[in-house]
Amino acid sequence: MRDAYHEELDALTDQLVEMTRLVGSAISRASTALLDADLTLAESVIAADDAVDALRDELDARAMDLLARQQPVASDLRIIVTTLKMSGDLERMGDLARHVARSARRRYPESAVPAALRATIVEMGQVAERLVAKAGSVIASHDVEEALQIEKDDDEMDRLHRALFGDLLNVASPFSIETAIDVTLVSRYYERFADHAVSIARRVVFLVTGRQPRDLIEHV
Amino acid sequence: MRDAYHEELDALTDQLVEMTRLVGSAISRASTALLDADLTLAESVIAADDAVDALRDELDARAMDLLARQQPVASDLRIIVTTLKMSGDLERMGDLARHVARSARRRYPESAVPAALRATIVEMGQVAERLVAKAGSVIASHDVEEALQIEKDDDEMDRLHRALFGDLLNVASPFSIETAIDVTLVSRYYERFADHAVSIARRVVFLVTGRQPRDLIEHV
Repeated sequence: MRDAYHEELDALTDQLVEMTRLVGSAISRASTALLDADLTLAESVIAADDAVDALRDELDARAMDLLARQQPVASDLRIIVTTLKMSGDLERMGDLARHVARSARRRYPESAVPAALRATIVEMGQVAERLVAKAGSVIASHDVEEALQIEKDDDEMDRLHRALFGDLLNVASPFSIETAIDVTLVSRYYERFADHAVSIARRVVFLVTGRQPRDLIEHV
Repeated sequence: MRDAYHEELDALTDQLVEMTRLVGSAISRASTALLDADLTLAESVIAADDAVDALRDELDARAMDLLARQQPVASDLRIIVTTLKMSGDLERMGDLARHVARSARRRYPESAVPAALRATIVEMGQVAERLVAKAGSVIASHDVEEALQIEKDDDEMDRLHRALFGDLLNVASPFSIETAIDVTLVSRYYERFADHAVSIARRVVFLVTGRQPRDLIEHV
């Protein structure tokens, strides 16, 4: 009985990692759809988000079922409650990837991203992909040092977010208001996507150490 | 023992309602700070968000403690897990109020909102306040019909969000890119604030009925 129970606990972790894969694929394809003004790809990202939501619902139901049947305490209880919080982060990351895809769709056949801002958005997409991949790795490994590294990738995202606003303001020939709205929203979606990856990493740190990352970060 | 346990469950609900009060006060004062370019008020909203975060931490710790000590099942278990999800929504609403206050601070002594867009932002602030007050009421009452009404207030917020983008684009003398960025972000903060109120209402509906609001909404 005890073994079957731990297999069920492991299955929760596997399902969280599977969610990071789906969400990683979504943000990668959404970035391509945005930069290439690829309507078909954008539509496929928008449609695929239902699978992320369904996985979250299934994961939460399983976690509730484990709480009710096994009445876990101590570290097992913390794992399950942390899972319920992380599933929310990952579901939201899926929504944000879908928002990027919707921005692509709204401006089709044009691109929502003008050529001068392309390089920054490409980089934001790459940082987002790296962050969600690392979040998946940390969920599986419970490696605290790796989790703390995620904060540094997020600093990079924040820098890009600020740089993009600088680019919007400091150009010889000003962008249209429409472009400013589009780019501001897209940049905000990437930034929030990164924040949720950080949130996942912090939950792992707290799960493993019982301490908040801000108390540990100087010592790494 | 059983009575003390139910008092502890009620205390979770009371603490959630207290969070809605803090967050309601925050969004109300942030809106005033934004519209009146009131730096002192903006600073006070920014500083007050720590109290919301602390309340969330305390609430989550209490909920975990109840899970470990009382090993609840059925509806009691659902109440505690829903509390853990709602505390996340409310903490995030506090963050969004703080973001509005930061927008006010960033543009001080000017206002981030030009006169022509003021009326719409005033209305967004009022809808946000109404939504969080209703969310608090629904958390306490578990009234499904009242919870479903919150979706309608959110439709109003979505309409204002779209109207504001229309206002930004369709003016005789165009706004600056800086204004477009500010107003786009602020509008997004209000919209997300409203989304979290809807999320709380949906969690109450699911808690009480075991069904998703989308399956019920035609019958009200």
